[in-house]
Amino acid sequence: MNEIIYKPIGIIHSPFDTISGMPIQPAAATGIKGTVTVFADYALGLKALEGFSHVILLYHFHLSVGYQLEVIPFLDDNKHGVFATRAPRRPNQIGLSVVKLNKIENNILHIEKVDVVNDTPLLDIKPYVPDFDKTEDIQIGWLSESKHRFPSGKADDRFNFLF
Amino acid sequence: MNEIIYKPIGIIHSPFDTISGMPIQPAAATGIKGTVTVFADYALGLKALEGFSHVILLYHFHLSVGYQLEVIPFLDDNKHGVFATRAPRRPNQIGLSVVKLNKIENNILHIEKVDVVNDTPLLDIKPYVPDFDKTEDIQIGWLSESKHRFPSGKADDRFNFLF
Repeated sequence: MNEIIYKPIGIIHSPFDTISGMPIQPAAATGIKGTVTVFADYALGLKALEGFSHVILLYHFHLSVGYQLEVIPFLDDNKHGVFATRAPRRPNQIGLSVVKLNKIENNILHIEKVDVVNDTPLLDIKPYVPDFDKTEDIQIGWLSESKHRFPSGKADDRFNFLF
Repeated sequence: MNEIIYKPIGIIHSPFDTISGMPIQPAAATGIKGTVTVFADYALGLKALEGFSHVILLYHFHLSVGYQLEVIPFLDDNKHGVFATRAPRRPNQIGLSVVKLNKIENNILHIEKVDVVNDTPLLDIKPYVPDFDKTEDIQIGWLSESKHRFPSGKADDRFNFLF
């Protein structure tokens, strides 16, 4: 299988028109509100989603061009493999955010804790179910040294050239 | 943007050649081991990943054809919108699993808690960092009624026709 083709199912709207100054993860985006417009063709797929307090958004880093296999992420000053980071310039530019779902009106999701740039194409919505992804004895590698920069951290300019 | 094109960065190997009998989520897959072969071109991107005990795998449900917007998921007998489930037949067939990372040898990840069918094309690897996706006051919608079926639940035949 050489190519996998997806189509956007909607658009994520946020207060952030550029990456600079945007919260770098949802946990740093408390109170930041946005909306997800799910295209009408897919709206039936939202049935029963309103019962979930949080959803996982998968989206396409549409402003990102190309990738590097080693990156210096926002939370550190050292190079790490891109798969050990959540940096947007990845071989497949898929972003993941767990956001708070405040309400659904027709095909519009009102969300909070948004760390996504405005007009981002949406690929998928999944219910957030802690038991599904339950883990124990967690180690967070290089981030254990960088946690003091989190969650107040906001994006600086280092990825601006990437967009 | 009409089409988004990705390429597999590797292959997930597991003991499951068919969906039937497979654990339906990682939390039900304790002790189930597998490997991820990351293609050599991307191996440099694994640097520093070994420090993480868990990783998020994003992959393509390659056996899945087409989709329904309303599905009866494994854990329930009622129809729900596909975005309120993790069913594989989705508009964009992206799967997500949090797996345990036991060790990395060159471009091979040895993983555990595998709920993925053998030979699944890998799209992305992200470090699992609970603080990034931290949430509170969690509600899990229709699944709160179905939790008694979890985590011992294994896939039954209901999605076989989908593959």
